[in-house]
Parts: sequence; C-alpha cells; structure tokens
Amino acid sequence: MTATPLRTAVVIGCGTTGTSVALALTGAGIDVALIDDDPRATAEAVALGAGTPWTPGRPPADLVVVATPPSAVVDTLYSAQSRGLGEVYTDTAGTKDVVADDAELRGCDLKGYVPGHPLAGPDASGRAAADAGRFTGRPWVLCPYETTPGWALETVSALIELCGAQRLDLTPEVHDRLVAELSHAPHVVAAALSSRFSDSSSAFLGLAEAALGDAVRTAGGDPWLWGDVLAHNAGPVADVLDRIAGQLARASAILREGDASAPLELALTLEEGRRGQTALRRAGGPGTTRDARAGGRV
Amino acid sequence: MTATPLRTAVVIGCGTTGTSVALALTGAGIDVALIDDDPRATAEAVALGAGTPWTPGRPPADLVVVATPPSAVVDTLYSAQSRGLGEVYTDTAGTKDVVADDAELRGCDLKGYVPGHPLAGPDASGRAAADAGRFTGRPWVLCPYETTPGWALETVSALIELCGAQRLDLTPEVHDRLVAELSHAPHVVAAALSSRFSDSSSAFLGLAEAALGDAVRTAGGDPWLWGDVLAHNAGPVADVLDRIAGQLARASAILREGDASAPLELALTLEEGRRGQTALRRAGGPGTTRDARAGGRV
Repeated sequence: MTATPLRTAVVIGCGTTGTSVALALTGAGIDVALIDDDPRATAEAVALGAGTPWTPGRPPADLVVVATPPSAVVDTLYSAQSRGLGEVYTDTAGTKDVVADDAELRGCDLKGYVPGHPLAGPDASGRAAADAGRFTGRPWVLCPYETTPGWALETVSALIELCGAQRLDLTPEVHDRLVAELSHAPHVVAAALSSRFSDSSSAFLGLAEAALGDAVRTAGGDPWLWGDVLAHNAGPVADVLDRIAGQLARASAILREGDASAPLELALTLEEGRRGQTALRRAGGPGTTRDARAGGRV
Repeated sequence: MTATPLRTAVVIGCGTTGTSVALALTGAGIDVALIDDDPRATAEAVALGAGTPWTPGRPPADLVVVATPPSAVVDTLYSAQSRGLGEVYTDTAGTKDVVADDAELRGCDLKGYVPGHPLAGPDASGRAAADAGRFTGRPWVLCPYETTPGWALETVSALIELCGAQRLDLTPEVHDRLVAELSHAPHVVAAALSSRFSDSSSAFLGLAEAALGDAVRTAGGDPWLWGDVLAHNAGPVADVLDRIAGQLARASAILREGDASAPLELALTLEEGRRGQTALRRAGGPGTTRDARAGGRV
C-alpha cells in the first residue's frame, strides 16, 4: 500500500479540538465530514465553516480524526473502523498510555491507527474557542506503535503539516509524564488555588492583583473533560501532585516553626522557583504570541 | 494640630514600591527627598526623576514613607522619628499585624504613624518596574491604631489620593488574612510549581502552553523580599498552604485509588475551582487593564 494523499477526512467530536482541526483542514481545501453525538455540536461546527455533516454512504475518508475525551477514544475508534469510515485513524486525546494500550486490548486495527495529541489545549472551554490557527507552531505528539506502517504515519503527518504544527514522536509513557508536569498537575493546582474563591464576595476578590487571575486562568476549563483526562493519566499526575503538596507542607512547617532562619529558608525555596520561572520564560518561544493574545482577550 | 498640607515628603527605600510612590508624588508637584542604604538605588531613582537625594539639615517633611521590606520597617521608622525627618509617617510593607505591634513595642511615636500597604505589588522585580501609575485605581490599605489622630490620617490620605489609589481601612489581622489568600500563599504555590523547571531542558519547557507561563509568572519576584514578607505573615499563610496541600493530596489519593468514580470525583473538585475562577474574573475590574498590559509585555 502506498501513501494516502490527504483529500478527505472525517472528524468525530466537535469540541474545541475537533472543530479547530476541521477548520484547519477545510481551510486547506480538504473535504471534511463532521460527526458528534450531539447534533447541536455538529450544527455549530458546520455554521463555523468546519465542514459538512457526515452522511451514510460516503466512501471511506483518507483520514479519520477521533477528537473525543480520552475515555471515549477507543470505543469510538473501534466503531469507526468497524464501519469502515476511513483508511487511517488518529486521535487527539491528552493522554496516550492508557489509550494506546486499550486500543490494542480492544482489538482495534493498529496498522491504521496512530495515537496523537496536539499540544494546544484544552486551555479554553467551549466551542467558541475553536480556531483554525490553534495548532500553528505548536508541537503535535505522535505515539506510533512499533508496527505502525509508514503510509499511516505519512497521512497523519500530512494532517499535522496542514494544521501548521510540528510533529514530535514520543513513547506514550514519556508523553504522559510530560503533560502531567506541564499541563495536568498545574491544572489541578490552579483549581485548588481558585476553589477557595467560589464563595468569596466580589468586594474581597476585587482586591486581588491581576497576577492571581493569570495564575488560576486554566481552572476555567471544562471540569468533566479534565476529570476524564486526569483519571487517564493517574500515576504521573499523582506523582507531581504529591511532590507539590510536599513542598507546600514544608513551606508551611517552616512558617509555623517561626525560627529566625525562616526568611532565609523560604528565600532559598523561592529562589529555585524563580530559576524555574526564568527557564520556562526563556524556553517559551511560541507561548509569547499566545500570551499576548490571551492578555488582550481577558 | 491641624491637617498638614502635603508639600514635602521623604521616601526611605528606593525599591519598586518606594520609587513608584516617589515618582507619583514628584509628578504631583511634591518636593520629594530620597533615602536608601544603597547609594546606587538612590541614584537610579533620582535618574528616573523620582526626587532628589535627602541631605542633612532639611526641615522635617510633611510625610515620611518607609518603603522597606517588612523586617526593616520598625527600625527604620524609629530611627527616622528619632532624627525628626517628618511630621507624619507611613509604611508600605505587605504585612501589617507584626509591623503594627512591633512599632508599639519598639516605642515608636504612634500618634504620627499610620501603618499602610498599597495593594499593587511586588508582582514585578527590580527598580525598572517602578511606575508612577502603579497604584492608580488600586486599593491602598491603612491600618490606623485606635489612637491615630485625624491629622495624621489626612496627610496619608492625601498621599493615597495623589497616587490615584483608593483608601481602604482594615484591621491588621484582616489585612494579613486577606493578602495571605490573595497574594502570599499563591506566590508560594507558583514557586512550588515552577521550581521543578529550574533544571529542565529548554526543549522540554518549549512544549509548555502559555497558560503555564501565566500560572507561574509571580514566581519571578525577588526571593529575599518574599521570604521576608512570608515570615512576617506566617500563621495566615501557613493556614492557606496547609489547605491547598490537603486538596492536592486528596486529588492524588483519588487518582491512585483508580476507582471508576475517579473522573466524577475529580470533576466535582475541578467544578469548584472553575466557579472560583469565574468569581475572581467577574470581580476583577481594575485587574483587567493590568492583565492586558502584562500580556503585551511578556
């Protein structure tokens, strides 16, 4: 079998990620059919110009993108393959280890499936945030099986290229540790920080500086989607949360002991945080643009 | 004694806050003299147009602003009062309970001293961030003693008005609980989150989304100043840190147990975080402007 040119696609799941992928593909001249359990979601994506509703009888598409929450990926994939919706399949779920293993256990056709994850969300909630440029310049992780054939990888690579993203091949384990550190655990931390404010008066909250709003902005994401993502990356996320909880408990103990050395001990801890913040800022090339845009929107 | 018209001021401490206060006063036509242990700091503030170096023999100023870290406020105040530098004194330290008590214990002249704290920093480090508009539209907390006379309050109120800020009278205890929740504990959380990245490769950190940079931005503040601030607000900060550490540990336990109900349990926790984030966003009137500016700068 030779490389499939990417001319037709099916996108299953019209949330932020699915609709953004569909918008990017349609914008690149690909014929995109859309599927969602919720007909309103499909209609909204169609209204945005993301494609047309999928109809029975269509010939198999060159590529099927499964853009559901992690827990729905494998069943959706199995069903789509059984119905012959396409030649090559990928997904966009934020966790890869459990998904890739379950696809194998469930008996999916692994030759035609490349697990994937575009590293561009969900940092905004709701379909209104769908955007054809969402993936531009961002990494798009693929976790191919050892047996994944070249033609399947080429089709998914064409998707990544059309979305303006950069392909990055990782093992599922490395991917999951990475997103636990950079995204999943920070999301739980932001939620813990902001949960206190759910019953606070606006007079009290009005005293907060903008930095606090920045710190907890990610906590605005969809709790059900995030609960699903976290549960699918349980071990790596729990490891990071335990470490951070330990750091906070140690800082608290230093404060409660109240030794004369407390300011120094705290400063040493904070200095490590400052070095980390500096390293992150220096590494954040593509982040800078999104940062500026986010600032302008809020 | 009648209200002192505010025509002359001394600012002691040419860090971000002190220089910003001096810039605002000088811009309003007040004659400002500057003092800092570090002659370079004074020279930099003078170069920014914040005032002129204080020289011996000046008549007592209408107002002396002590803009040092919390641990230096009381000694600085005592010394300034002993030397007769001014008629009325205030400070800008980020904690008030220990400072207000220590000023009494040390024997400072409480009739001429009003403990204060402009809620506008330190969210940026270094004197380069000094800005005459730093306090515009922001709350400026005063914690007067029961015995504070009206003429002292009127002079400090004039300072707040010239800085474009809004006076908010609180007890030192309420102030300290408030800043522990809204600023001090969130700073420690940001530092804990980012400390992991101090030895990370830029290739790894380049995969982070902009939301992570936003979440840890405050960790870029001066560790020594923050260590001092935290140690002066130990109990309230430790209470918040313990609560957040407990929330993270519970989320971790849910993940490790791996029950089928984990996504639901996590979603309920995250939902509370989302409600808090929404409440904070809605309350954040003045923050919005600073948000947009911060976004544009980063």
